[in-house]
Amino acid sequence: MALRARALYDFNSENPGEVSVKENEVLTLYSEQDIEGWLEGVNSKGERGLFPASYVEILRSDAASTFNNNSCNTSGDTYPDSRYANIPSGGFDGSHKPKVENFSKPSPPGFTTFSAPLQQQQQHPPQQQHHSYQQPSPGSDDDWDDDWDDSSTVADEPGTVGGRYNDFEGNGPSTYRVSTSSMSRGNAQQAKSSATVSRNLNRFSTFVKSGGEAFVLGEASGFVKDGDKICVVMGQYGPEWQENPYPFTCAIDDPTKQTKFKGMKSYISYKLTPTHTQNQVNRRYKHFDWLYARLVEKFPVISVPHIPEKQATGRFEEDFISKRRKGLIWWMNHMTSHPVLARCDVFQHFLTCNSTDEKAWKQGKRKAEKDEMVGANFFLTISTPAAPLDFQEVESKIDGFKTFTKRMDDSALQLNATVNEFARKQISGFKKEYQKVGMSFKVLSQAFEIDQQAYSVGLNQAISFTGDAYEAIGEYFAEQPSKDLDPIMDLLALYQGHLANYPDIIHVQKGALTKVKESHKHVEEGKMDRAQAEGINDRCNIISCATLAEIQHFHQIRVRDFKAQMQHYLQQQIAFFQKITGKLEEALQKYDNA
Amino acid sequence: MALRARALYDFNSENPGEVSVKENEVLTLYSEQDIEGWLEGVNSKGERGLFPASYVEILRSDAASTFNNNSCNTSGDTYPDSRYANIPSGGFDGSHKPKVENFSKPSPPGFTTFSAPLQQQQQHPPQQQHHSYQQPSPGSDDDWDDDWDDSSTVADEPGTVGGRYNDFEGNGPSTYRVSTSSMSRGNAQQAKSSATVSRNLNRFSTFVKSGGEAFVLGEASGFVKDGDKICVVMGQYGPEWQENPYPFTCAIDDPTKQTKFKGMKSYISYKLTPTHTQNQVNRRYKHFDWLYARLVEKFPVISVPHIPEKQATGRFEEDFISKRRKGLIWWMNHMTSHPVLARCDVFQHFLTCNSTDEKAWKQGKRKAEKDEMVGANFFLTISTPAAPLDFQEVESKIDGFKTFTKRMDDSALQLNATVNEFARKQISGFKKEYQKVGMSFKVLSQAFEIDQQAYSVGLNQAISFTGDAYEAIGEYFAEQPSKDLDPIMDLLALYQGHLANYPDIIHVQKGALTKVKESHKHVEEGKMDRAQAEGINDRCNIISCATLAEIQHFHQIRVRDFKAQMQHYLQQQIAFFQKITGKLEEALQKYDNA
Repeated sequence: MALRARALYDFNSENPGEVSVKENEVLTLYSEQDIEGWLEGVNSKGERGLFPASYVEILRSDAASTFNNNSCNTSGDTYPDSRYANIPSGGFDGSHKPKVENFSKPSPPGFTTFSAPLQQQQQHPPQQQHHSYQQPSPGSDDDWDDDWDDSSTVADEPGTVGGRYNDFEGNGPSTYRVSTSSMSRGNAQQAKSSATVSRNLNRFSTFVKSGGEAFVLGEASGFVKDGDKICVVMGQYGPEWQENPYPFTCAIDDPTKQTKFKGMKSYISYKLTPTHTQNQVNRRYKHFDWLYARLVEKFPVISVPHIPEKQATGRFEEDFISKRRKGLIWWMNHMTSHPVLARCDVFQHFLTCNSTDEKAWKQGKRKAEKDEMVGANFFLTISTPAAPLDFQEVESKIDGFKTFTKRMDDSALQLNATVNEFARKQISGFKKEYQKVGMSFKVLSQAFEIDQQAYSVGLNQAISFTGDAYEAIGEYFAEQPSKDLDPIMDLLALYQGHLANYPDIIHVQKGALTKVKESHKHVEEGKMDRAQAEGINDRCNIISCATLAEIQHFHQIRVRDFKAQMQHYLQQQIAFFQKITGKLEEALQKYDNA
Repeated sequence: MALRARALYDFNSENPGEVSVKENEVLTLYSEQDIEGWLEGVNSKGERGLFPASYVEILRSDAASTFNNNSCNTSGDTYPDSRYANIPSGGFDGSHKPKVENFSKPSPPGFTTFSAPLQQQQQHPPQQQHHSYQQPSPGSDDDWDDDWDDSSTVADEPGTVGGRYNDFEGNGPSTYRVSTSSMSRGNAQQAKSSATVSRNLNRFSTFVKSGGEAFVLGEASGFVKDGDKICVVMGQYGPEWQENPYPFTCAIDDPTKQTKFKGMKSYISYKLTPTHTQNQVNRRYKHFDWLYARLVEKFPVISVPHIPEKQATGRFEEDFISKRRKGLIWWMNHMTSHPVLARCDVFQHFLTCNSTDEKAWKQGKRKAEKDEMVGANFFLTISTPAAPLDFQEVESKIDGFKTFTKRMDDSALQLNATVNEFARKQISGFKKEYQKVGMSFKVLSQAFEIDQQAYSVGLNQAISFTGDAYEAIGEYFAEQPSKDLDPIMDLLALYQGHLANYPDIIHVQKGALTKVKESHKHVEEGKMDRAQAEGINDRCNIISCATLAEIQHFHQIRVRDFKAQMQHYLQQQIAFFQKITGKLEEALQKYDNA
């Protein structure tokens, strides 16, 4: 049965690719999942095209579910098969194909009119915008005990985590989850409209959700405390975040399994020790998850590192715990390295609040959840260099970065696939080949042992030892990936998370720039006064400064991380081949007296 | 249509597994190929069993072909599928199965009554024994120009030699041919019978063909010149060949392509330089082939190393020439290492006769072909230690050696299969994996190069270099097998040739021992006088001494060769892994200033 929807309002198409609909008209949909707030379908005249998702209700037996569908589906969930579920469709134009043949990345959709909807003007007031966004953890702390991922009253299934190196088809296990940000970002506070200028039609666009639009249009307002001020300074390579004057790091020690409610519930507790306090605090995965949601909602143009994925089974297995810990260490490293994230209140609360002082924890938690300087208001806290940026130059830099992230994303995907396969080969094929050689030498030595003449014994023993050496080398091959390839995959996973964040960030900046262009047009047409246009210009400058600072930060930690990781990889590889050489030298010596 | 044969004489079965036949009786055969001179079939009474092949004529439309079939088929050709075509069926009892699963060796035939036919007594005079054995190269030198393997008037097909490492199914290319000896050995001169004691029924048994039977029965006679004397001495481990007082080696230099008849024919010429003359001689493959035939016919209980296989196509390709040269070097090494073979006239003629003095060459060639001290008479040239051997001890040693060769043969086959597969994996899979990693690093560096900020350039270059390094390492893997695994396979091929010789050698000794046992019985029954029995005993002692000396020699060169080869292999492997380590260290250094 075809999927259908009923139009709630009239919508007149204004751009190619769109289709007009009349109130109460019934449309056939291609999918009930919206793309940047737009649905694709065929109207009653048989015309195919896009129309705003908020102008229709999807027809289903349960009438109460109207709009739930839209509200739950942000742009990011359009292609659930993708590893990059929160990259908006068309965010990359698909013109650059990956060069490897062996992995499948879903093709971009047929239409790539990514920017068209942004230029739409609002024609009708859509539904009230306080839909049923799933508020992340807004209730009491007690709710958390039902967190499916972090505590359990049933036994975990053992053995489900085991094989890390899947036959790679793009569905291999990913260390970091990449589908949270869009959901959470939908939660961003949006200042109430008071402006008369154009508003984006699309209630679900990142530009709107992030608060970027509201801020550019001058709708954001709030009192910025001195402690909340964030500085973008002009550095050697352009705008950059002012360095954290009190840099620190934070160790994550081996997690332990804890129980509560007399052993009815158990969970894994991570010991965090920040260098600036030297006080250890215990945090659970759900705390990381909560913090992550706060950060995503607060910082519209900052790439918050993704936390390691949730996992349904095997959560208490050593392999999984160790893998998650490594993921959290990487995450923590990126958090403390970031000049803005490292200093923000909610992160500091997370790092420093005494784990046993439940009252203080709840107080800080509530404060963070009520933080007014999130989304649109976050931009109020930013101070920029005196000289405004040249928007043409900004646009060119952003476009260059877009190309960069696209290429890096492709190459990271390829490298990840290759490395995953390489690890699998070493663990299975390489090991097997070396051990087969070892076994054949052993069999030969056993045959030779039938001849027990004195001059033969030494050789027999030496060949037997050589057989053992090759069996050991087989083991070395199988053990190696966890030392050198796994860290590379962890790094790639972290960066794939960042790369998945950037389309949204770029989207916000591009949205702001579009508003500037529109304001110029409005001024020319006499629809807007110059002061208002200048205000838009200034606020776009703030967003642009923040975006470029974030991009600069990204490049710097990327160079730092990849350099360190490549060095580590090569050092491990060298040690590995030296170990093999050592074993072979040992075997060779056995022939000296043979 | 069933294959049938007509009995020429009566044959009365005396042992289990045999079936009696009457003159003119028509029998149904299972195969026209005899096994050690016996055919299997069903007689007119419906009894199934073995009967002497020489007692029947196979019924075919062309009556003239009678017996041709038998005369062309020696025991060795029974299982043409086998790599070990000249191992007599039942020579190994098949009770010891190889431990690897991945290679197929044909099962021994259903009947394993190997020794039974030897105990048969002759009941009727079979046909005259000068059948149409294909005389190897008995004609003039001119015949040789038609040698299909060594000269050609048609262009060689290129590209047919290429892939050395076949998907191993027991049919991989073998460096040495293993099917020549039985054919040639059939050519051994057999002294005319004058004895009255039992003669082996089987005209095709190795014991008969080698001249072993004739010698044991005292039928061999000839004048032994001093220069022909061969001494077996009692050494630390039992009888051994007296060492060559003038040891020498012989280099085989890079072969060159020669032409004759104004370029109509071309052939490959090998330059041989023996250390004891320091005179270079040129020899062609056909010369090696001729020499090999002479040696096999002359020495019944010496394991003549097999020469490299003939090859129909690609004979002038570098790969093939280089491989054959390596095979000839191994062969030459075994020839010059053997105390008896190294000193024999025909080999010395081959090594020292001036290549351009055609007359001298032909003279030596004819002399060798007319040598009377071959086969049965060869044993006349052997002098033994004063104390005769204890035949029970000899039998136990021989049985032990038989077990040894069986096990060594199995393990060599397994090792060869493993090593072949390992080489193939390195050339294809391993290379591909390392190069895929290299390419992925390259792609990453290319993506990173889009960001041309100063602090990024060093890293980009270092990653690019790392990519190159991994591509190079892939090449190293592909190049390596020719350095370390190929020599192992060459060694194994040579030894597989020796192992294929030993069943015949053991057969001769066992035949002699059976004669001794029979003579004891005959003496007890008053059918033979003691003097005659003692003569048999003495001659069996000579055969036993020679056999044990040959076995001792085999063990000594085996230990020498395998020790040297294992050392060479490990040294090459160490150098290989060090080369990889060096490349990786070079790559690592690139990050120092990145």
